[in-house]
Amino acid sequence: MTRPVLTDARAPLTRSVSIVNEHGERETVSIPAERALTVYVDKRELVTLMTLGAHPEWLVLGYLRNQRLVDALDSVDSVTVDWEVGAAAVKTRSGIERIEERTAHRVVTTGCGQGSVFGHLMEEVDSLVLPPARLTQAQLYGIVNTIRLQESTYKSAGSVHGCALFRGESMLLFVEDVGRHNAIDTIAGWMWLHGHDAATEQEPLVFYTTGRLTSEMVIKSAQMGVSIVLSRSGTTQMGYEIAERVGLCTVGRATGRHFLCYTAPERLVLQPELAGQRLRSAGA
Amino acid sequence: MTRPVLTDARAPLTRSVSIVNEHGERETVSIPAERALTVYVDKRELVTLMTLGAHPEWLVLGYLRNQRLVDALDSVDSVTVDWEVGAAAVKTRSGIERIEERTAHRVVTTGCGQGSVFGHLMEEVDSLVLPPARLTQAQLYGIVNTIRLQESTYKSAGSVHGCALFRGESMLLFVEDVGRHNAIDTIAGWMWLHGHDAATEQEPLVFYTTGRLTSEMVIKSAQMGVSIVLSRSGTTQMGYEIAERVGLCTVGRATGRHFLCYTAPERLVLQPELAGQRLRSAGA
Repeated sequence: MTRPVLTDARAPLTRSVSIVNEHGERETVSIPAERALTVYVDKRELVTLMTLGAHPEWLVLGYLRNQRLVDALDSVDSVTVDWEVGAAAVKTRSGIERIEERTAHRVVTTGCGQGSVFGHLMEEVDSLVLPPARLTQAQLYGIVNTIRLQESTYKSAGSVHGCALFRGESMLLFVEDVGRHNAIDTIAGWMWLHGHDAATEQEPLVFYTTGRLTSEMVIKSAQMGVSIVLSRSGTTQMGYEIAERVGLCTVGRATGRHFLCYTAPERLVLQPELAGQRLRSAGA
Repeated sequence: MTRPVLTDARAPLTRSVSIVNEHGERETVSIPAERALTVYVDKRELVTLMTLGAHPEWLVLGYLRNQRLVDALDSVDSVTVDWEVGAAAVKTRSGIERIEERTAHRVVTTGCGQGSVFGHLMEEVDSLVLPPARLTQAQLYGIVNTIRLQESTYKSAGSVHGCALFRGESMLLFVEDVGRHNAIDTIAGWMWLHGHDAATEQEPLVFYTTGRLTSEMVIKSAQMGVSIVLSRSGTTQMGYEIAERVGLCTVGRATGRHFLCYTAPERLVLQPELAGQRLRSAGA
């Protein structure tokens, strides 16, 4: 397979600004960078993404894939990102069929992903068969702890969403962005580029997100062949219903030893003896 | 002025689901409702919004206004929401000019608002002149405390964003939705319907959000004539830069007595003596 040629246009992730605090004092704090990246496919403007800019090439590839605009990686010749002009130029080998039509229908999802294809994704959902992955409670706690220890833009500047891909409890990739959908798409792009072995029951692929378990998160995870999604946050009704429908295991409120498994609990190997003393659940 | 005729299709805001907790026990928790609402303007499908469903008619009006599709309230004849079919039928008195063209250009913003008009909004930003509003630190603390005491879907089910509109420290409206952009648009719709006196220096209009101070939040607030935005969260670079450009006062990390004023501090009447003992800033 011919891999696309990619630039490596990582940009600074934070900037310092001078603020006034409650004591009336000037203070310098970091805020996350945020850049407009306009994506052109074969010189045609497609969309402008607001991004932190950590991995713009993976983001663009993941966006094209998750929007179902490009089906095969080797149909992409190159992705060239130039921050000078805030543009990502995608060159395809043979163009994208019916691109106008396929980018016409918009749905604003909750997450709020680039929902233009949401309607079509829903049709796709029922055809998905997820790998028979199972995660032990010990692995789940391992993931939560790895995330807790992860150095991040969130810790230094706040205001970003983090996502990570794990095999079992070992982290394959950690991505942050100002828009959560960008972080998901970046991981999708990375998975597409680097591939991944089929998940096994022992070493399932697990997707972690700091954000909510929305319909977008569930659908995109399922499309990536990930059948277990972990979040420190909660779920929404659509996320819950779609996860049930595809048999994707959603686990929310995962902090410390606490968690709530909303859907497909059969994918968890529960080890209640590891849960330690009882805390009251922090709600849904 | 002729007011549009609106249905009142409020729907249940939460549903109960059965989960499995870390002790391997079944537990019933609430999650926020989430509904697809497809907006039709004069029988033409415009967009599908995923919403909690608390105030669908205000949401649709605010969406049309914030997307700059309808300029005058009296050009809207009626908004009819029917959850049976998940549709909001908007009837205008004389149609919307060039609607195809005006809904064609898409930008996916961070928030991630229905960015289709983001590009055009940016042009508009420079023409905005915000009212000379000033907020005292005492009023700011009053707002934070009112929000703290507010009964909410967030408290019962989590996973929603909250927004509120204040005049001085008195709350005019509190709105939650699964998508933050929906909460903003709902407040915009309400303001459009109910109008509001010009803000005074003593009683400024203040917008509160649980979410980040993104470009979308700043632009929409400025368009609503709100010159002070308060958040418990932080800011992003675009939000910061646009707020500076329009002279909108953004205050983040507002919890307890702590806050960081990112932009336009001249709009705050600082009263450091109210700040109490020093806490370390929680970061940007």
